Amino acid sequence: MEFPKENFSEWYNEVVEAAGLVDKRYPVKGMHVWRPYGWKIMQNIDNYFREIFTEYGHEEVNFPLLVPETEFKKEAEHIRGFEDEVFWVTHGGLTPLDVKMLLRPTSETAMYPMFSLWIRTHADLPLKIFQIVNIFRYETKQTRTFIRMREVHFFEAHTAHATYEDAERQIQEDIELWKKIARKLALPYRIVKKADWDKFPGAIYSLGVETVMPSGRTLQIATFHQYGQNFSKPYEIEYLKEDGTHEHVHQTTFGMSERLVGAIVGIHGDDRGLIIPPEIAPIQVVIIPIVTKNKQEVLDEAKKIEKELKNAGIKVHLDARDNYTPGYKFYDWELRGVPLRLEIGPRDMKNGTVMLVRRDTREKILTKREEYVARVRELLSEIQEHLIEKAEREMQERIKAVNTIEDAKNEDGVAAVPWCGSEECGQKIEEETEKKIIGMPTEQKHGKCIICGKDTDIVAYVAKPY
Amino acid sequence: MEFPKENFSEWYNEVVEAAGLVDKRYPVKGMHVWRPYGWKIMQNIDNYFREIFTEYGHEEVNFPLLVPETEFKKEAEHIRGFEDEVFWVTHGGLTPLDVKMLLRPTSETAMYPMFSLWIRTHADLPLKIFQIVNIFRYETKQTRTFIRMREVHFFEAHTAHATYEDAERQIQEDIELWKKIARKLALPYRIVKKADWDKFPGAIYSLGVETVMPSGRTLQIATFHQYGQNFSKPYEIEYLKEDGTHEHVHQTTFGMSERLVGAIVGIHGDDRGLIIPPEIAPIQVVIIPIVTKNKQEVLDEAKKIEKELKNAGIKVHLDARDNYTPGYKFYDWELRGVPLRLEIGPRDMKNGTVMLVRRDTREKILTKREEYVARVRELLSEIQEHLIEKAEREMQERIKAVNTIEDAKNEDGVAAVPWCGSEECGQKIEEETEKKIIGMPTEQKHGKCIICGKDTDIVAYVAKPY
Repeated sequence: MEFPKENFSEWYNEVVEAAGLVDKRYPVKGMHVWRPYGWKIMQNIDNYFREIFTEYGHEEVNFPLLVPETEFKKEAEHIRGFEDEVFWVTHGGLTPLDVKMLLRPTSETAMYPMFSLWIRTHADLPLKIFQIVNIFRYETKQTRTFIRMREVHFFEAHTAHATYEDAERQIQEDIELWKKIARKLALPYRIVKKADWDKFPGAIYSLGVETVMPSGRTLQIATFHQYGQNFSKPYEIEYLKEDGTHEHVHQTTFGMSERLVGAIVGIHGDDRGLIIPPEIAPIQVVIIPIVTKNKQEVLDEAKKIEKELKNAGIKVHLDARDNYTPGYKFYDWELRGVPLRLEIGPRDMKNGTVMLVRRDTREKILTKREEYVARVRELLSEIQEHLIEKAEREMQERIKAVNTIEDAKNEDGVAAVPWCGSEECGQKIEEETEKKIIGMPTEQKHGKCIICGKDTDIVAYVAKPY
Repeated sequence: MEFPKENFSEWYNEVVEAAGLVDKRYPVKGMHVWRPYGWKIMQNIDNYFREIFTEYGHEEVNFPLLVPETEFKKEAEHIRGFEDEVFWVTHGGLTPLDVKMLLRPTSETAMYPMFSLWIRTHADLPLKIFQIVNIFRYETKQTRTFIRMREVHFFEAHTAHATYEDAERQIQEDIELWKKIARKLALPYRIVKKADWDKFPGAIYSLGVETVMPSGRTLQIATFHQYGQNFSKPYEIEYLKEDGTHEHVHQTTFGMSERLVGAIVGIHGDDRGLIIPPEIAPIQVVIIPIVTKNKQEVLDEAKKIEKELKNAGIKVHLDARDNYTPGYKFYDWELRGVPLRLEIGPRDMKNGTVMLVRRDTREKILTKREEYVARVRELLSEIQEHLIEKAEREMQERIKAVNTIEDAKNEDGVAAVPWCGSEECGQKIEEETEKKIIGMPTEQKHGKCIICGKDTDIVAYVAKPY
């Protein structure tokens, strides 16, 4: 399984199955089966979301999947944005439904009729909820595991606030929260503001969290939307102010999906397979007994080590299969991306050592038996840091400041170009480069629009997005 | 909120909303919104499933929701059993789908095409997987929160074995596993074999786990099905035996749903609201500061207690709201069923005590400050045991052995009657009592069939099921 950039797509499509994340043979386009190892990674991420969003004052709820057409059609822009890409349920048994229903593509239109019942006075605000569910989009483009699917494992946080400023503060809090998530998942990113024609249907503005895959294409892995009162007006979500008047609430959302797993696969992987960041790895340490002789003795020692690591709160797996060679097992667990391998053999037992092998650098570290637990803990933390640092460095290399349309077109990764900000020039940039403006980073820089030459501080990231 | 038996239905419908479990105002029949407290209870149950099924060698997977009509139609009895009650997806966007798809009513037909790819040789067996998902049934009868819904939160374990005997042993293991679940949820039950006309579509036989609600109606809260080779033949799930020949696998399933929450609500509740068994309670102890004077001092002490309990691994919540009286808070947390209340006031601080109040017996226990953590732990465990014991006693009272069709008809709960086992007499029992044979318990008893008078050892439970 080679990993040259030009073969990234092939490598990616192969590794997601070979490493046991999913099975793509399910007989519906764009829908896959999560296998135990892949699902465990997703669940570790979900559980971290539960922990951190609860810490930030959100509560978890669970809304129905089906949305009646009548509710869906209340916000005009939203429906225009989604009507071509939703699945419709039209029959119950053999009976046509009176009101047809759609499979949620996201849950605004399911949730907001309830918000209008839940929110009465300023004391009910802010309302901060989230849910982790499956959503559905009838994608007509080519589908790709985790990245463009018709059924998507989805996280969505929805908030309602008394004022626009409170909603703005929520988005700042979301960004703070995202930074913690990014460290946990070891994902590099840039936050960009979406061009007006590219924002979420119904939003005042949208921010995208973008990462860059080894192919040079960008992947949007999280979004924050400021809705203002665009939904609260059609859905009649009002609150009674302290002065006795009523006002519509101001709303935000924060969305993420299984794309995060796709980003981890692509950004950390190498020609041996996956590398899972230790903080979300289902298995942090795999123990391989080197069993040429004294088999039972080595196995007993391996079991002892397994127990010691487990007691230390480390996620450990002992590979005691006796129909595979140690070499095969090395290969197998490298493919699955287990961050640290611990080898124990007869010589180690004699010398009072264990061999630790890092998945990221492949470095071998001979460690004394009496200090190996502490060393394992240190190494897991070093691997996490190294993945973060390496991925950030590679991402930086994939973003280049350029000043001509030609350079923007030829750039392999992300071209950062000066742009006046007008829709006219924006569309021209997209046409002439055959790429997209994926958004504007927060950091501005003085330059001249590469189309009209006007002075500007705005930078546009131009790239091919997934 | 009174709780006389004749008003059970009204009480139940009211308490599920009043206690903050769900909101039933979602604008689709049979689909509700899980509110944070209700969802937390469901998740505690789910997480226990994850723990215990993993311990018993199952792995968690996640299959797509949509099943193509072509896959669904492979097992003839199964499709006959479900075709009137599935939702159909017919359109993607504005385009009619080539092959229409249904929302899974259960996942046999989604999973088994993949089983036929996964299972190759005897070394792949047993295959033991489970998933926790939403399923859909187009119920035309009256819907009821948790009990009869159109969208259902569902647990399903599926296994494949080399022989029929292995599959039988799996069902014995499932029963062992269920017994642990029943203790965790404090639910009384009887395991019955379903009459042949009432088994799962496609099964060789079905076992139901039945409990009895205070209304006297039975509720099926878990099922075990022996499929034998009924699915493996149409889905071509074969394995290579050691002797070189091929054989179809033998399969079982184990299903449970949000009905478990309904059973907890109904079986443990009283006229003050819910009583949540400590082992799955989101909040095991609620601290109410009695703040007539020395407000800050009492609050500080309450926070200290909160921390001490949290450190002891107890799920605790401090109700520090200052716009509600202690009396209102008592009422509120009793309604939500928190098993233990801890009151701390100025007098307690002076005397070095705290007041513990049990939700189940309402007993007040004045406890010394230095030993309260141990006492809390003891009491939680006593409450759990008391709920189990009380519920089992009440269930026993709701099952009566009777020997005439008249008595069976007039019995408020479950009538245990002698039955020859013939379908003819079975149908007559159901017609004349206007009830159902919910199944046959494992314990047999000698008697004469209440229809034909024939000698028999078979007992039938006759009742009105939910």
